[in-house]
Amino acid sequence: MENNKLTIGITQGDINSISYEVILKTLLESKVYEPHAVVIYGSAKVAAYHKKALDINQLNINVINSAREAEWGAINLINCTDDDVKVEFGKSTSIAGKASFQALEAAAADMKAGLIDVLVTGPINKKNIQSDSFHFPGHTEYLEQVLGDGNKALMLMVSDVLRVAVATGHMALSEVSSALSVSLLLQKIKLLDQSLKKDFGISKPRIAVLALNPHAGEEGLLGREEVEIISPAIQKAQDQGYYCFGPIAADGFFGADNFSRYDAILAMYHDQGLIPFKTLCRDEGVNFTAGLPVVRTSPAHGTAYALAGNNEASESSFRSALYLACDIFKNRVRYFENNSNPLKKQHIVHSGDLSDLPVQDEE
Amino acid sequence: MENNKLTIGITQGDINSISYEVILKTLLESKVYEPHAVVIYGSAKVAAYHKKALDINQLNINVINSAREAEWGAINLINCTDDDVKVEFGKSTSIAGKASFQALEAAAADMKAGLIDVLVTGPINKKNIQSDSFHFPGHTEYLEQVLGDGNKALMLMVSDVLRVAVATGHMALSEVSSALSVSLLLQKIKLLDQSLKKDFGISKPRIAVLALNPHAGEEGLLGREEVEIISPAIQKAQDQGYYCFGPIAADGFFGADNFSRYDAILAMYHDQGLIPFKTLCRDEGVNFTAGLPVVRTSPAHGTAYALAGNNEASESSFRSALYLACDIFKNRVRYFENNSNPLKKQHIVHSGDLSDLPVQDEE
Repeated sequence: MENNKLTIGITQGDINSISYEVILKTLLESKVYEPHAVVIYGSAKVAAYHKKALDINQLNINVINSAREAEWGAINLINCTDDDVKVEFGKSTSIAGKASFQALEAAAADMKAGLIDVLVTGPINKKNIQSDSFHFPGHTEYLEQVLGDGNKALMLMVSDVLRVAVATGHMALSEVSSALSVSLLLQKIKLLDQSLKKDFGISKPRIAVLALNPHAGEEGLLGREEVEIISPAIQKAQDQGYYCFGPIAADGFFGADNFSRYDAILAMYHDQGLIPFKTLCRDEGVNFTAGLPVVRTSPAHGTAYALAGNNEASESSFRSALYLACDIFKNRVRYFENNSNPLKKQHIVHSGDLSDLPVQDEE
Repeated sequence: MENNKLTIGITQGDINSISYEVILKTLLESKVYEPHAVVIYGSAKVAAYHKKALDINQLNINVINSAREAEWGAINLINCTDDDVKVEFGKSTSIAGKASFQALEAAAADMKAGLIDVLVTGPINKKNIQSDSFHFPGHTEYLEQVLGDGNKALMLMVSDVLRVAVATGHMALSEVSSALSVSLLLQKIKLLDQSLKKDFGISKPRIAVLALNPHAGEEGLLGREEVEIISPAIQKAQDQGYYCFGPIAADGFFGADNFSRYDAILAMYHDQGLIPFKTLCRDEGVNFTAGLPVVRTSPAHGTAYALAGNNEASESSFRSALYLACDIFKNRVRYFENNSNPLKKQHIVHSGDLSDLPVQDEE
């Protein structure tokens, strides 16, 4: 960060999906990224293809070789893909899978090197991206390994009205129960609490913890996890001073505005959190990877192949993701300043004092 | 049914809960049940206690010994509980458990005998009702056994905007995956299709089938049930002429109004269906037990002990449940008339022709 100016990394995501569409539509408004610098990790050729398909040729993209060359107030692009890259709208192809990984890998490396401050990722196809280099269920797990510095990631869905974290992420539903433990939940409660304080500026966060089973297990009649895992985890967290409450039956919780009494909700599994989140927030939601020393957000939607190439996708969630990433970065800086905690703990800043630290222009 | 007049059975539910409150508040408006007859299976003593607590002493309740004595256009009550029954607001007690079962048992017997046309059940506590006589996870499973006549029940949540059925009902989340099979889903799709035709008058129902795993399993990456169970079941159903579609990733489905393109949705498990249903429909929803030869509905909420005795509960869902039960009964009569299918197949009608068949006044 230089004088409140951030370098915003964006990965191209799946080139056959709506990813470029939502990225380019967002960047059509220069106020969205000014005075910052945008660096797209992608392909100039593919970007040009999508610009043409969307009929937005007025968008200027500055092709650069390194994030160090990024111009402020401009859209910069680093070529990361093979020359033979080819767009096939709505299709899952190995070329697209490889291209999405190449962009992600390059962006992660630059983030590790402190060349970008925040990362906003375009949606990928979790199947075609798999390779010897990428064997993760999603961005969250990959970034945890590559940029986590030993920290655990927490998938946190964010909108103006609701923040929902999931204790278990991209895994089969049948594996959820055995993945839960007191220590895992305690870890997630702490991560969530830390993120609410550090990334959202909430001094005493209130966290609602959902139950796993229908009717919160009906005192053990419909599953024992509430009795044996979730309640003990909440008790332990409370004993350690965290404001968390539950386990709360998930089905009625979102229909009665009960959620508005909490700063965040910890769901036990992916769909339990994402069904109500997407139902209530529609396309305004953002996926934020909390818990890591770096700031990464993404739109809440996926590749939406069915819409690809039709110029019908809404960029609303991507725009929110970009704004949120910048807000969180600045909140973190403020938090560490207020807590006299040197930001050098963050990868994204190199060393020394915060205010005048060059991140990008260090050459 | 006599001249379009129905005998509406109501079970008292859990006496320490909001059950009596929502029943009595609903019946305060006589237009809700006129010209029909209401028969409450409960306790005159407990009803009087709740009337006093709610300050609605003007409500007249006609205590009778048998449903055969029920007066048209009136609220009748049959004493089913022990004399020493005692209300303790907000508490789960064995007395309340016993009382809720006694009422349910009596109502089921009268329904079997054709003395009531429809049954609207007050919420029970699924834990305190358990006994040697009742060892079911809920009403649905009990009524399936007692009144099902060999038919399988389907839990169907109904509102003006949404109908959601669940393939697996009141069971621990960890048991859901192993409970799913091609034959079970095929059975549920057929039950749902039949109910939409027979109970809701939809001639060619369109059914959306949800996936089990996050992102519909990402082609097997996040679980195999879509590939091995859900898709084959949908294919089989389509081959047999059913209009069903899926498996559809559950998280985004309810945020984009996609559901409005379908007459009903088949969810794989309780919370997957009930979270979005209650989020969207709030307290307007009704729980209908489809698939049985008898008509039973209930409000979508539970005992809500925390609200008990405060006169704060909304009777909206109970009122909708009562209306829906009557609508479904009449739709069924119409369906069987249109399809020249004698209603004597139904328990609730004794024999002979539909239109002038006395159900209650046969003494």
